[in-house]
Amino acid sequence: MTSAAKSYDIAGLKARLGGIRTEENPALVRQKSRDFYWYSPTLKRQLDAVSGDIVAFPASEAEVLAILAACHALAIPVTPRGAGTGNYGQAMPLDGGLVLDLSGLDKVLEIVPGRVRAQAGALIADIDAACAASGQELRLHPSTYRTASIGGFVAGGSGGVGSISWGGLRDLGNIVSLRIATMEATPRILELTGEEVQTVSHAYGTNGIILEVEMPLAPAYGWTEAIIGFEDFGEAAAYANALGEQDAILKKLVSVIAAPVPQSYFLRHRKYLPDGLHIVLVMLAPVARAAFESFTKRWNGRTLYRSDLVGPEEAKGLPPLYELAWNHTTLRALRVDPAITYLQTLYPFPNQLSLAEQVHARLGDEAPAHLEFVRFDGKITSFGLPLIRFTSEARLEEIVALHEDLGIPVFNPHRYTLEEGGMKQTDAAQLAFKREADPQGLLNPGKMIAWAHPDFDLGAGRTYLFLGLERHAGRAGAPGDPT
Amino acid sequence: MTSAAKSYDIAGLKARLGGIRTEENPALVRQKSRDFYWYSPTLKRQLDAVSGDIVAFPASEAEVLAILAACHALAIPVTPRGAGTGNYGQAMPLDGGLVLDLSGLDKVLEIVPGRVRAQAGALIADIDAACAASGQELRLHPSTYRTASIGGFVAGGSGGVGSISWGGLRDLGNIVSLRIATMEATPRILELTGEEVQTVSHAYGTNGIILEVEMPLAPAYGWTEAIIGFEDFGEAAAYANALGEQDAILKKLVSVIAAPVPQSYFLRHRKYLPDGLHIVLVMLAPVARAAFESFTKRWNGRTLYRSDLVGPEEAKGLPPLYELAWNHTTLRALRVDPAITYLQTLYPFPNQLSLAEQVHARLGDEAPAHLEFVRFDGKITSFGLPLIRFTSEARLEEIVALHEDLGIPVFNPHRYTLEEGGMKQTDAAQLAFKREADPQGLLNPGKMIAWAHPDFDLGAGRTYLFLGLERHAGRAGAPGDPT
Ligand SMILES: Cc1cc2nc3c(=O)[nH]c(=O)nc-3n(C[C@H](O)[C@H](O)[C@H](O)COP(=O)(O)OP(=O)(O)OC[C@H]3O[C@@H](n4cnc5c(N)ncnc54)[C@H](O)[C@@H]3O)c2cc1C
Ligand SMILES: Cc1cc2nc3c(=O)[nH]c(=O)nc-3n(C[C@H](O)[C@H](O)[C@H](O)COP(=O)(O)OP(=O)(O)OC[C@H]3O[C@@H](n4cnc5c(N)ncnc54)[C@H](O)[C@@H]3O)c2cc1C
Repeated sequence: MTSAAKSYDIAGLKARLGGIRTEENPALVRQKSRDFYWYSPTLKRQLDAVSGDIVAFPASEAEVLAILAACHALAIPVTPRGAGTGNYGQAMPLDGGLVLDLSGLDKVLEIVPGRVRAQAGALIADIDAACAASGQELRLHPSTYRTASIGGFVAGGSGGVGSISWGGLRDLGNIVSLRIATMEATPRILELTGEEVQTVSHAYGTNGIILEVEMPLAPAYGWTEAIIGFEDFGEAAAYANALGEQDAILKKLVSVIAAPVPQSYFLRHRKYLPDGLHIVLVMLAPVARAAFESFTKRWNGRTLYRSDLVGPEEAKGLPPLYELAWNHTTLRALRVDPAITYLQTLYPFPNQLSLAEQVHARLGDEAPAHLEFVRFDGKITSFGLPLIRFTSEARLEEIVALHEDLGIPVFNPHRYTLEEGGMKQTDAAQLAFKREADPQGLLNPGKMIAWAHPDFDLGAGRTYLFLGLERHAGRAGAPGDPT
Repeated sequence: MTSAAKSYDIAGLKARLGGIRTEENPALVRQKSRDFYWYSPTLKRQLDAVSGDIVAFPASEAEVLAILAACHALAIPVTPRGAGTGNYGQAMPLDGGLVLDLSGLDKVLEIVPGRVRAQAGALIADIDAACAASGQELRLHPSTYRTASIGGFVAGGSGGVGSISWGGLRDLGNIVSLRIATMEATPRILELTGEEVQTVSHAYGTNGIILEVEMPLAPAYGWTEAIIGFEDFGEAAAYANALGEQDAILKKLVSVIAAPVPQSYFLRHRKYLPDGLHIVLVMLAPVARAAFESFTKRWNGRTLYRSDLVGPEEAKGLPPLYELAWNHTTLRALRVDPAITYLQTLYPFPNQLSLAEQVHARLGDEAPAHLEFVRFDGKITSFGLPLIRFTSEARLEEIVALHEDLGIPVFNPHRYTLEEGGMKQTDAAQLAFKREADPQGLLNPGKMIAWAHPDFDLGAGRTYLFLGLERHAGRAGAPGDPT
């Protein structure tokens, strides 16, 4: 066993697991123990050595239950994993133990008008492919549409493409129901619906293993992609905001990316992107095209690209527009310049435009603006995902503080805990549910500060460090970019 | 001919119309010359004697063009008519002449994902019935769903059921395109799209005859109906507003109706409506039921009725919920108490709740509150359609003034002109388009003040009176309620 601090009875575990597929090869275990944590230089430093001891690949719900029971009996931590595309180390087993790879639970179980039920490990794009015959698709998906699992999205994501119309996963109604397994001597199966789903959604798998997910569907329209350019950043942002507020122009994406980010990093779209222009990415229902053209003309926006105008041949050579947006903006920048990282902020309504302009005016060179417009509590506003030309962790903290001083909440992507990455407070319902569903604290240890350290002062500005991390201390440095 | 002031060459017209079906029987012409203008005691007094001279019933586009050319040649006014459910006298031929009944142009022409094209006279419910096979329906409909035409809705309506998700007809994108005929020696056919549709939509047919309408579609979910009760009016309004702001709970209707209106006038729902409770009417996508229940519980709302809980037998005996809402609230009140009338107001965001509470506190007995929550310029806010226990026109004007003094715009439903019923200003684009499409001013005369009276001072608070109305002066009083 590779654990320095604790060691687990992995041999005993294997004996209990019978025919269930597992993997212990350290290189492979290590690969399945990481996600996109390296997006953050801070997390890269902290988590590079993290690895589990064994990976299990259940092929059915019954096998999941058997694994949980066995781990419970031997007090072995279990860290669930969908596709490992999270980018705060959410799926990394800080205390070692078993990585529960759910990619084998990939069945789409039921599709009816307005609703789909799938197993947690199903890939998001595969669910949509199954729904296409009925003219439907998921309301929301992360920009990791083609690689992420639905269970991982619900447990670790927040929203993304579609949030301009439907808000985020946090909104009541964007997750219909969840079927989960508890971490107990005899794991129970629970069906959560209504607001109960919020006890387990965005809990990083710390208080239940999601087995099945039931999600609302929206019509699949074959979205038209548009890129609109503006000389002035403030104009681009104001246009995007106003487009968001056009209630009858149905959209799936409205993103603003300040120059020179698009020109420097969107390599395959480069020829559409004149130097100096700030751009707005739009995914649009085809029925709204004429209305959108009129609207864009009023704003003197320059149409740089339209998927329906370039023809299918040319469009096929390009990545989908959503793979320039959300966290993919950062990924594209990182691929060109590994010294880039980013932040996640919320520009609160109704001051989103003036705040975004202020920040961009002040930090635009070091932290070029990237805005994602969304519906948030019934209003249009924008998240910020500014790129950061990284110099030091200290400077990164300064930039965070600068945002917070302006009244801009930061969801710090350089933290691996629920509390520090989120609203800087413990979700009491999630904690209470963990007491019920994981009384021994074996699920994804180290991610919920309140569990291990109820007295930790979240307001004090000190970073939480999970003690278990010491166990990985002796390990070699990890490879860089796993993509 | 019945005209006192002018007389038209109706015999010459008939000779030109050949085989096109017409009707001259005065009682029948009179019936086709009126709409729901009697909702307003003011309009009832002003318009009771209005009648056209002849009604034509074209069965095809070619017949419409032939009628327009003939009327143009003889300088006979043409007032288009869909189903005559407008309630400001929009479809009433103030200057006599020909009533163009478009109910024969009722074909649904094309249904594709996201979009339907129909002839202008098609009834809205019939369009939805045709779309049902593809799981689709219109985004928006007036509460006169089962009786109104799509052309009349576009030309005379503003929104209604569905506006909580999609805004109103005024929003770019809620009308995809219009095919219209101009009123010229040789009528032209134009296809309007993008913002061009706004020159003809809500112009009361004064600047073009709509032949075909292309509208966006949304999924048809078989909406769940709910009635939620509150002891406190302010709570009911705040709940409705917050429900509107739930981005992931898909709704088609959120209406607040203050006690004792529901208890007094919603006769077939009476048994669900305990005395004293203010109610919220909701049409809800079935997929959102559990989320809606959680949400309603947080607000301590009392579920008085749910269509999915009473069973199909019981639900079948009730009118659909939307026939308690929008202008149907007033209609139900009028049926019980003919002395009731109403107003139409907008509670501007972000003060909608405090303004609605203020007005209701001040006028609640005389003008019990009725709020329709909608998306308006990207935010949730509410229209007011307060019932008015009518005493005199002078008092009605006082109530209007009281609203305006509080900063609450009134769309006065006691006026038959575009300008006075709307934003108290001339729509320059509509006027310019009328110069092109109806240079002789023969379409629905008297409805666009700016055409006949460019110098009329809209700000002066004086009511506009169309001179042509004198021609009807000698006529007998009209029958009361035509329903
Ligand atoms: C380039 C890039 C772009 C991204 N864009 C977005 C975006 O637009 N929006 C967004 O929200 N996120 C985004 N992310 C983050 C991430 O891709 C998504 O949240 C994704 O949905 C996670 O799915 P996954 O299957 O990879 O989950 P994983 O990374 O495997 O897991 C995520 C979390 O969920 C837990 N988990 C996984 N499966 C289960 C289960 N069955 N039961 C309980 N817990 C479970 C894991 O333990 C972990 O804590 C992005 C990441 C990258 C790298
Ligand atoms: C009980 C009740 C409830 C209502 N609820 C609503 C509501 O929720 N929302 C709403 O917006 N309205 C509402 N209304 C008003 C009205 O019912 C609707 O606007 C309806 O859609 C009008 O359709 P119609 O076919 O009856 O039009 P009509 O009344 O026949 O005509 C309306 C106007 O459009 C013109 N017109 C008609 N057809 C054409 C055409 N083909 N080309 C050019 N002009 C044309 C007419 O000249 C007239 O000016 C309500 C009315 C009543 C009585």
